[in-house]
Amino acid sequence: MDPSALMQRIARHAEVGATGDGGVCRIALTDADREGRDLLVHWMKALDLDIRIDQIGNIFGIRAGLQADAAPVMTGSHIDTVATGGRYDGCYGVMAGLEVVRVLNAQGIRTLRPVAVAAFTNEEGVRFMPDMMGSLVHAGGYPLQRALETVGTDGSVLGEELRRIGYAGGMPCGAILPHAFVELHIEQGPVLEAEGIAIGAVQDLQGISWREITVNGQSNHAGTTPMHLRRDAGYAAAAIAVFVRELAHRFGGSQVATVGSIRLHPNLVNVIASQATLTVDLRNTDESALQRAEAELAGFLQALSMRESVQIETRSLARFEPVRFDDRIVGLIEQSAARRGLSHRRMTSGAGHDAQMMARICPAAMVFVPSQQGISHNPREHTETADLVQGANVLLDVMRKLADEAL
Amino acid sequence: MDPSALMQRIARHAEVGATGDGGVCRIALTDADREGRDLLVHWMKALDLDIRIDQIGNIFGIRAGLQADAAPVMTGSHIDTVATGGRYDGCYGVMAGLEVVRVLNAQGIRTLRPVAVAAFTNEEGVRFMPDMMGSLVHAGGYPLQRALETVGTDGSVLGEELRRIGYAGGMPCGAILPHAFVELHIEQGPVLEAEGIAIGAVQDLQGISWREITVNGQSNHAGTTPMHLRRDAGYAAAAIAVFVRELAHRFGGSQVATVGSIRLHPNLVNVIASQATLTVDLRNTDESALQRAEAELAGFLQALSMRESVQIETRSLARFEPVRFDDRIVGLIEQSAARRGLSHRRMTSGAGHDAQMMARICPAAMVFVPSQQGISHNPREHTETADLVQGANVLLDVMRKLADEAL
Repeated sequence: MDPSALMQRIARHAEVGATGDGGVCRIALTDADREGRDLLVHWMKALDLDIRIDQIGNIFGIRAGLQADAAPVMTGSHIDTVATGGRYDGCYGVMAGLEVVRVLNAQGIRTLRPVAVAAFTNEEGVRFMPDMMGSLVHAGGYPLQRALETVGTDGSVLGEELRRIGYAGGMPCGAILPHAFVELHIEQGPVLEAEGIAIGAVQDLQGISWREITVNGQSNHAGTTPMHLRRDAGYAAAAIAVFVRELAHRFGGSQVATVGSIRLHPNLVNVIASQATLTVDLRNTDESALQRAEAELAGFLQALSMRESVQIETRSLARFEPVRFDDRIVGLIEQSAARRGLSHRRMTSGAGHDAQMMARICPAAMVFVPSQQGISHNPREHTETADLVQGANVLLDVMRKLADEAL
Repeated sequence: MDPSALMQRIARHAEVGATGDGGVCRIALTDADREGRDLLVHWMKALDLDIRIDQIGNIFGIRAGLQADAAPVMTGSHIDTVATGGRYDGCYGVMAGLEVVRVLNAQGIRTLRPVAVAAFTNEEGVRFMPDMMGSLVHAGGYPLQRALETVGTDGSVLGEELRRIGYAGGMPCGAILPHAFVELHIEQGPVLEAEGIAIGAVQDLQGISWREITVNGQSNHAGTTPMHLRRDAGYAAAAIAVFVRELAHRFGGSQVATVGSIRLHPNLVNVIASQATLTVDLRNTDESALQRAEAELAGFLQALSMRESVQIETRSLARFEPVRFDDRIVGLIEQSAARRGLSHRRMTSGAGHDAQMMARICPAAMVFVPSQQGISHNPREHTETADLVQGANVLLDVMRKLADEAL
């Protein structure tokens, strides 16, 4: 594979919504997203791909197989970003898919099955919730109509925005049922870099439990209120954050736990907080362990509420069960890396990806390449060119293999 | 003392800057503050008081004594409020001072010493820092020029605002050195109400140590970053809040500790916080204990910084040593309460008050009355009329006693 072709495409696409500091702001269904889609479709057409756009705006570029009606082998990811996004998250997988097609075209290779490159709508879920929406609707996990009626953080309606940017397609969602799905993505975590490994063969994906917790206490003077008469929502929030950290260490294994957001009211130096709103993000590859973690948190909140005389309410923001990827495809990834002399390991994805939705309807797996310092959702997101090319080569191998599998 | 006269004054003054929900917004040196000052001066003149305004805008109303040149006995507090203030904090003490004068006038009582009622500029420190500014400058603890040059949160300059509202007086600051100072104030804490006690004889005031702590870690994905590779500023902030709570319980006595403000960046559910900014408010009546608490916090921060691989910086926002009030005046307060058959106790002020500044230059003490649920800096701030009147009566007794003390 030609490194410059891949890198030029990534660089050119990163100009769309460029933030000037190396980052990209291409939030789903904005004008920047339209421009990014237009560029992608332009490239797909230049590669002689057959373009299909479905009713949620997912874009598929299809390269015919020898067996025209066979289930295609699909790769892809997304091209939308967070507000302070990098240039690799999502886009790398789509651009590498185009490169797979370009190489197949250049070498005149005909595969038995069609090869499809997908760009799924609204993976990030920044403006419209939930995230991974396009692939979720494609997989039948979320009603199309409900998705189209989603009201954005800016008050816009998803279906109207989709029409406005010209990507409300006619194809029914889920019309394409792949033979297999392989997503190439930067790790967005520090593991591969820390261990000096080139290729991650992603065998599973953590289950996710997001809860928003609201603590209501009593606002009072920080000097005049004795400790035993306090109903301190701020302390309760801190105690929860410390508890989930301790829980993650105690559970071990794949368990992670994060309190990434805390808001206190009135948030003043000398006033005991009357209210705290915080989020807890729990993840585990084992559904039963994740449920135990959730139960322990619920028990802690109940005891804390009694002990501190505060009211605690929680609501689920997101809940996904762990995903087990297809063992055979994971094996193909390992074989490709081994043949190419690349260090590799099986690993877990801690982040959500479109592949987890596709895994509901077909055999699926993912290829990871290292992320420098694990930084993502950040203009400083970076992966070395050599790592990006190696990942794309592994994708090419696996796609070729899968595309020649018998019907 | 006539309950209706006191309550009418408080109610009338609370119309100035009224927020419509029972509260008052009369931030220092705003138009509302001017209007509140004008009303106060109008009332002082109606009571035949001699008005003096000093260069920092402190207002003094002086009732002559038999010995015209004797050091006066002074009472007073402040009439500025926080943005969501109640009607009693500060204003009660000033209005009760006027009532003391009204009763002396009505009964034709001549005291040996002059009696002065003071309203100090900018006690709250909302718009211009530091708080308790007027009394601090009066006591010689802060240079006048520096105070006048203070730039407000809205970019205004204090000296200009003082002139604008017409309260840049000519009297040198500190020109009046009182024989004694007594401040009547609502408790702003829950102790008197919780114990069913009418009068607090305030014998000391907690030392205050405010620090702002900034934690710098590394922003990373909450799913993909293993626990042992995290540099989580949000967790560090929570650990600090839990530590200071534990410290307060371990120290016991008058020690209180509060983390009232926490801000995380980027403050998102699935991103490990790269930065946390929080405040720690430590108070103790014992300076050596307060220093021990500060040292323990510093030690904890150092260990936390190492353990979590985060950078921690702190800066002092405020530091006041504990204040010991005049034991003889505290005794006079107890005697008055006892003679009037009112339950009373010696107590500590957890909040800062103008009296602590006056204590630097003359014998001083404070009288507290109960605050319902300890709520203050809040429109729901409330004290029962009977409690307010009892407090004013104790103030009257103590002022009379002190005003007849020999030269």
